[in-house]
Amino acid sequence: MASLSAAFTERLEAAARALEPLLEALLGGTPLAGEIARPPRLLAAMRHAVLDGGKRLRPFLTVETARLFGETGEGALRAGAAIELLHCYSLVHDDLPAMDDDDLRRGRPTVHRAFDEATAILAGDALLTLAFDVLADPALTAEAAVRAELVLGLARAAGLGGMVGGQMLDLEAESRSTPFAEAEVRRLQAMKTGALIAFAVDAGGIVARAGAEERGRLAVYGRALGAAFQIADDILDREASTDALGKRAAKDADRGKATLVDVLGIEAARAERDRLAEEAVAALAPFGPAADTLREAARFAAARRK
Amino acid sequence: MASLSAAFTERLEAAARALEPLLEALLGGTPLAGEIARPPRLLAAMRHAVLDGGKRLRPFLTVETARLFGETGEGALRAGAAIELLHCYSLVHDDLPAMDDDDLRRGRPTVHRAFDEATAILAGDALLTLAFDVLADPALTAEAAVRAELVLGLARAAGLGGMVGGQMLDLEAESRSTPFAEAEVRRLQAMKTGALIAFAVDAGGIVARAGAEERGRLAVYGRALGAAFQIADDILDREASTDALGKRAAKDADRGKATLVDVLGIEAARAERDRLAEEAVAALAPFGPAADTLREAARFAAARRK
Repeated sequence: MASLSAAFTERLEAAARALEPLLEALLGGTPLAGEIARPPRLLAAMRHAVLDGGKRLRPFLTVETARLFGETGEGALRAGAAIELLHCYSLVHDDLPAMDDDDLRRGRPTVHRAFDEATAILAGDALLTLAFDVLADPALTAEAAVRAELVLGLARAAGLGGMVGGQMLDLEAESRSTPFAEAEVRRLQAMKTGALIAFAVDAGGIVARAGAEERGRLAVYGRALGAAFQIADDILDREASTDALGKRAAKDADRGKATLVDVLGIEAARAERDRLAEEAVAALAPFGPAADTLREAARFAAARRK
Repeated sequence: MASLSAAFTERLEAAARALEPLLEALLGGTPLAGEIARPPRLLAAMRHAVLDGGKRLRPFLTVETARLFGETGEGALRAGAAIELLHCYSLVHDDLPAMDDDDLRRGRPTVHRAFDEATAILAGDALLTLAFDVLADPALTAEAAVRAELVLGLARAAGLGGMVGGQMLDLEAESRSTPFAEAEVRRLQAMKTGALIAFAVDAGGIVARAGAEERGRLAVYGRALGAAFQIADDILDREASTDALGKRAAKDADRGKATLVDVLGIEAARAERDRLAEEAVAALAPFGPAADTLREAARFAAARRK
């Protein structure tokens, strides 16, 4: 696998830096029109969950996909921010004692450890709600049709037929006596992590009003990248230390979670991860050199070390 | 206070009957476009939380408000269904062990008792997400601007500056050594229950494309009705039996929750409840007899026995 260019790494980091003040503003203390007050403790928990953390890969994908079509306005960044808020809510709820019961996230205490369980549940609920707020807000674009399409796409990717449903299947896998078949693991992962990553790509196309054929290609790219990302995650969970990850390592195997590492073995899982990254790259062929950053993003998703 | 007409009661029940097949269809097993699969156990928990239960007051308010402006299409019912899904998610999460820790809701086991805690968290998350799905879906109306406005309004009413924030303040009240002042209780309740009820009214105005002045009057009506509803709830909690309520009675006092019954005493709370219902009625004066059903709805919210 080709190593990542310095230009790519810089671009990824620049996108994360551009996102931060927007997230900071969205999590400010002043109520918006239609809000009554923003309770300080709830807001503090939401900020703990969102600010100063993560690679911000999903917003990066949204912004770079929009850029592919010449769309460089604030709209794509706002759509990416909404997706990041939603991603962060999912981490807060996944970490809860009744779910994965994790104490550590991005090297810091999880929200229910830093605050308490009730606050973590509510902070997650409020972040999920805020994600839809950001997409529906005219500040994203004057085009209401674009905003409504973003809301619908995020809801489908994140709800019972996507991310939340995938988390449910993941929990069920832990208590099952028979191991998951490969096709079941792939479907579970397409729901649990793939759908939101694919939507992050699609959102860039929606904001830029890309055509149907272009969005079809982007869908292939997004799904393959999402699958590669999840296999990379499973391999890291098995191989890296807790210190390197900033979250508890080897927890999947401990809890009996279904991963492709279990189904295929680690060598075949690595090969599949790399194959998927190249499938994502190949889907971008018609876009020429303009899509080089998205190509590198696919390789990054597979090759990352945390 | 005037007694409710038989026609009103029939109309409320008819709205609930009309809603049921729509909720049933929204919680069907077939994945929608953009969804991958709907996991049966998650869907069963969502159905347990939503179907066959409740007065369906919020959707009724949406439908009747839209009707006031001559809008009788399916759009208002769909908007009402979204609000009911969101209301049901809030009950599922409020009942969790880390929150109010309730075993009984509408005379049946709460979701985390009938299923388990993780499933209840995820079912709530999925219901919240589905609410936004329904509002953004073109099936509600071809007008994307209406859909986007509904999404934004619901997010503001239900998020950190509304319902979720109010629940946070309510939990904080339990652990505070000094009692809440009247103004604090009123603000808390305006957030926790008032905002969503007021939005249910506003949603009818949005769907029917009511004018700004009309929506201003409806906002006064919705806020007053929501406040009356909550005081009625607090009085019922203090006076009714668990059997009559279908949920645990006297739990507010047990947990040290802040209510206007505590602040004002029960007699003054009753008077304030009735005053707010009449304030709601008065706000509808310019609409004439066409608003009689909404007037009765305000009296119903105050006079209900469960």
